[in-house]
Amino acid sequence: MTRIQTFVSAAEVEGHELIDRVAIVIDLVRASTVIVEAMASGARSIAPVETIDEAVRIAGRLGRDDTLLCGERRGLPIEGFDLGNSPAEFTPERVSGRRLVMSTTNGTRALLAAQGAEEVLVGALLNRSAVVAEALATGRPVALVCAGAGSRFALDDLLCAGAMVSRILEEREGVELDDASDAALRLVRSTPLTPGVLAGTAAGRALAEIGMEGDLSLCARLDVHPLVPRLVDRTIRIHPPGEGG
Amino acid sequence: MTRIQTFVSAAEVEGHELIDRVAIVIDLVRASTVIVEAMASGARSIAPVETIDEAVRIAGRLGRDDTLLCGERRGLPIEGFDLGNSPAEFTPERVSGRRLVMSTTNGTRALLAAQGAEEVLVGALLNRSAVVAEALATGRPVALVCAGAGSRFALDDLLCAGAMVSRILEEREGVELDDASDAALRLVRSTPLTPGVLAGTAAGRALAEIGMEGDLSLCARLDVHPLVPRLVDRTIRIHPPGEGG
Repeated sequence: MTRIQTFVSAAEVEGHELIDRVAIVIDLVRASTVIVEAMASGARSIAPVETIDEAVRIAGRLGRDDTLLCGERRGLPIEGFDLGNSPAEFTPERVSGRRLVMSTTNGTRALLAAQGAEEVLVGALLNRSAVVAEALATGRPVALVCAGAGSRFALDDLLCAGAMVSRILEEREGVELDDASDAALRLVRSTPLTPGVLAGTAAGRALAEIGMEGDLSLCARLDVHPLVPRLVDRTIRIHPPGEGG
Repeated sequence: MTRIQTFVSAAEVEGHELIDRVAIVIDLVRASTVIVEAMASGARSIAPVETIDEAVRIAGRLGRDDTLLCGERRGLPIEGFDLGNSPAEFTPERVSGRRLVMSTTNGTRALLAAQGAEEVLVGALLNRSAVVAEALATGRPVALVCAGAGSRFALDDLLCAGAMVSRILEEREGVELDDASDAALRLVRSTPLTPGVLAGTAAGRALAEIGMEGDLSLCARLDVHPLVPRLVDRTIRIHPPGEGG
């Protein structure tokens, strides 16, 4: 029996409840999409940090030569940073071989909230099947941790969780879903996860307001990067098969 | 433009964000169903309180002669209380003309979390259309406050919220839904709200474990009591039309 729990926002995660779980952190629009895209483009590591000050301090410590500062506030690039939070910016030309220090609002909060899990993976539609396979391979109960928006529910994240639940059911029999995982699955079965559907969510509307709605089609691509970013000691890296865990 | 927000659990409600709203508090299985049923059976008032000690103290102050203690812990009746938390218990014979003091876990927490709203109504499927009509008549933005389970999402409450959103769209044009209201509507359109569906939720399974799954068909009845319980000064009453607000 594989147990699947979905947390509809990072604020739902309390205390030690992830302690024996493998967590998949989902901030579809856009932090987890950016993380997967950056890793696919050859970034060496990503350090998620909460504040701009902390980002600057850590980048200074890592050495500014091969470190890039990236992130957003209210969706927009941060003054003085090298990159914003659009997956389109994270090309091999910009990020290959580089260390990234990233500060986003909801995505960072969700990664930090999930730190109490036994293993913490980063999931988006881009790497949906790969991250699900890696989570199932641990044999642990799976916690899908949606970033949400502030302390609130975000439909884009729950739809992405639903796409993961759907994939889990293809891979496994005897899966036990909690209410939110059940809801996520029901939603994604009735609502195809297209850029148009994402455009109708609060996150999609917020992107349109700043002229970045083109990012939604990048976020909606399914299973194009078979890689799994993993958070260990506050740093996200790709662990090659056999070295992970 | 009528704005509709849905909070998927009481834990999502922060600070003063309900201040100009009319809130509909939903704990479908079973507190808000019990409240509507009790009022339909002629109860004079219901005081929702958090602790058992507080319930006993308030009942003592109100006078034990016409006051009934009711509520649950883990779904079961509380020792020494007059009634549990099954809608089947709240018959006219038991509650007509009586004051009730009620302590339930999630339902009470949601009512208290919603107290910051301009008006606080109690909604279930039993009074779905009536509570929606009363909320819309205020002209205020509507906040559907799901009790959830602890700090977590509960599918039964979100489906009930979806049934309310669906009704609002029948009544009004130009409705603006937030992500959770949109999800609730999508869910209820693909998942008919039957006792069988409720039986598959965490709340339904918990009732089955204590042999009370029969309550689910009482919770699933739609629009049978056209009345609207209202929380004012920590007490729930029916305000006749014209005296409310």
